[in-house]
Amino acid sequence: MSFKTIDWQDDKVVMIDQRLLPEKEIYREYSSYLEVAEAIKEMVVRGAPAIGVAAAMGIALGAREIESDDMDSFSKQFSEICSVIGATRPTAVNLFWAIERMKRLFEEYRTETVEALKGILKQEAISICHEDIAINREIGKNGGVLLKDGSTVLTHCNAGALATAGYGTALGVIRSAIDYGKNIKVLADETRPFLQGARLTAWELMKDGIDVTVITDNMSGHLMKKGDVDAVVVGADRIASNGDVANKIGTYMVAVLAARHGIPFYVAAPLSTIDLAISTGDDIPIEERTPTEVTHIKDRQITPEGVNIKNPAFDVTPAELITAIITEEGVVSRDYIRGLKGLFEKR
Amino acid sequence: MSFKTIDWQDDKVVMIDQRLLPEKEIYREYSSYLEVAEAIKEMVVRGAPAIGVAAAMGIALGAREIESDDMDSFSKQFSEICSVIGATRPTAVNLFWAIERMKRLFEEYRTETVEALKGILKQEAISICHEDIAINREIGKNGGVLLKDGSTVLTHCNAGALATAGYGTALGVIRSAIDYGKNIKVLADETRPFLQGARLTAWELMKDGIDVTVITDNMSGHLMKKGDVDAVVVGADRIASNGDVANKIGTYMVAVLAARHGIPFYVAAPLSTIDLAISTGDDIPIEERTPTEVTHIKDRQITPEGVNIKNPAFDVTPAELITAIITEEGVVSRDYIRGLKGLFEKR
Repeated sequence: MSFKTIDWQDDKVVMIDQRLLPEKEIYREYSSYLEVAEAIKEMVVRGAPAIGVAAAMGIALGAREIESDDMDSFSKQFSEICSVIGATRPTAVNLFWAIERMKRLFEEYRTETVEALKGILKQEAISICHEDIAINREIGKNGGVLLKDGSTVLTHCNAGALATAGYGTALGVIRSAIDYGKNIKVLADETRPFLQGARLTAWELMKDGIDVTVITDNMSGHLMKKGDVDAVVVGADRIASNGDVANKIGTYMVAVLAARHGIPFYVAAPLSTIDLAISTGDDIPIEERTPTEVTHIKDRQITPEGVNIKNPAFDVTPAELITAIITEEGVVSRDYIRGLKGLFEKR
Repeated sequence: MSFKTIDWQDDKVVMIDQRLLPEKEIYREYSSYLEVAEAIKEMVVRGAPAIGVAAAMGIALGAREIESDDMDSFSKQFSEICSVIGATRPTAVNLFWAIERMKRLFEEYRTETVEALKGILKQEAISICHEDIAINREIGKNGGVLLKDGSTVLTHCNAGALATAGYGTALGVIRSAIDYGKNIKVLADETRPFLQGARLTAWELMKDGIDVTVITDNMSGHLMKKGDVDAVVVGADRIASNGDVANKIGTYMVAVLAARHGIPFYVAAPLSTIDLAISTGDDIPIEERTPTEVTHIKDRQITPEGVNIKNPAFDVTPAELITAIITEEGVVSRDYIRGLKGLFEKR
């Protein structure tokens, strides 16, 4: 991979600014947790697994900023940091998963000195980053076999290296199929309003020399009808215990069309995206983002001044439309309630 | 209506430049048929009925440009003009309908002098323009009763005053329902890549004080699932004799989602959009437009340099997904083969 989505360097969090791609490849350094929280909110970094890594690193950074040596005071400030990080984006469960993991670690090691604990939290954040890449490789391994040689695979949004610590979930599956020697072409939905497909998926696949064609979000149905799509692979922001999947707005429409045309619809995600505490997709909070994402493209306003806008950032695809969920622990299909629970018991 | 989409003024064709809306309201004057052909191709004017009017006016303009007084020479040049106008855009059948109408008129009056014929062709083009508005009022009357008071109506692309000589087809149905005293809110798909919804539908509905909310094309499924859409009304670029409808790319996906959620899906179009010579939608030619419409928004490039692009401008919605087709001669549903044919026999 010729770029790094997120990294810990010299006690700073370094992230590629995804708002500026593909025009500019700029890496930003963050030395405070408040800056990291802002970066998550403003989508400098996005993608559920990458948000998880950023959250962990933000917390580790925040812990280092605490000046008190007293564990009670440290603990209080640590809680506050976790709250701030937790208030950035509501849908991707990896954010909360990472916060919980950091909190558990804190409890486990609170008998250590404050200084030691800061070091432990930093190591954990770095571990989460490395683990994420390893997990994506496993997801790729499990999913790569599902794609047929000579396939054209549609993906929505960016569930690639840029949405994770590296390699990607959905794009990891595609990369892996290509590693297996299969000839795979990718159709990338541009993914309005933030254009993750047109900007990010296209950029990272072109960097890897993978054949990618960008289409607008309203074209996939037409291409499926023409027989030009062999499979769909997307990522996920949160998976309910029944297999309902929250993912980038528009995923649901792709899934409905894929079902109509008998095209397999795969979701690729790590276990940290599965929220067994939630029974169905109806209970997943859907983030509503600022209207300016819709009214403006970069600095150019496209709509009439003052028009009403809706901007839900995610939707929920019901499990019945999903051919299989591909995770690092294996592939689940049909009986998601039992299958998803089973993945956690395997470990 | 506080603007005119297309008009014949002082032997010039005047059109609002739809590429610049809503930012700038600029009217362009055309005094040659070649300029009108270019304007159709470049989408200064768009929308099937408006293209029909522009074609007729372009031909009338072209006839006036012919310098010969000899009918044979005039006839030859007239044919050439019709060919040039006919080669602008392939999908909207109203273009060919208008050309055929002008050609028939030419044959009917070729015993007149060249000068008289020029005047007759001009009058016909102006008539087509006025008829179109009258037809849209009839479509509105027939369709307005179908929308329920308190409905939120989704529309895709722009089938409004800007897509016609005035009033609109799909938006005419909405305007008419509002005239009937019904409370109607409109959801406008932004309609990438040309953004007819975000730019044109939003602009003309706001001018009329109609409640309009812009969403990106990938949001409609989510809103339907939430119960936020009561009906869909769209226009058409060509309707096959079996009721299959070619319309702006993305219409098919909206129709599939509407069917899934039991939401009525209406198509509003004049008889000039119905092509009885074509048996199914599979035979409708689908225009592929320039990649730059997808790669650039206004002057800003959004995709990586050199990425592959597909840009089909239309798709076909099969008749089975259409609740009813609303025309100036009445509403057809279910048995489209008999029903559409019957509309022409009524006249």
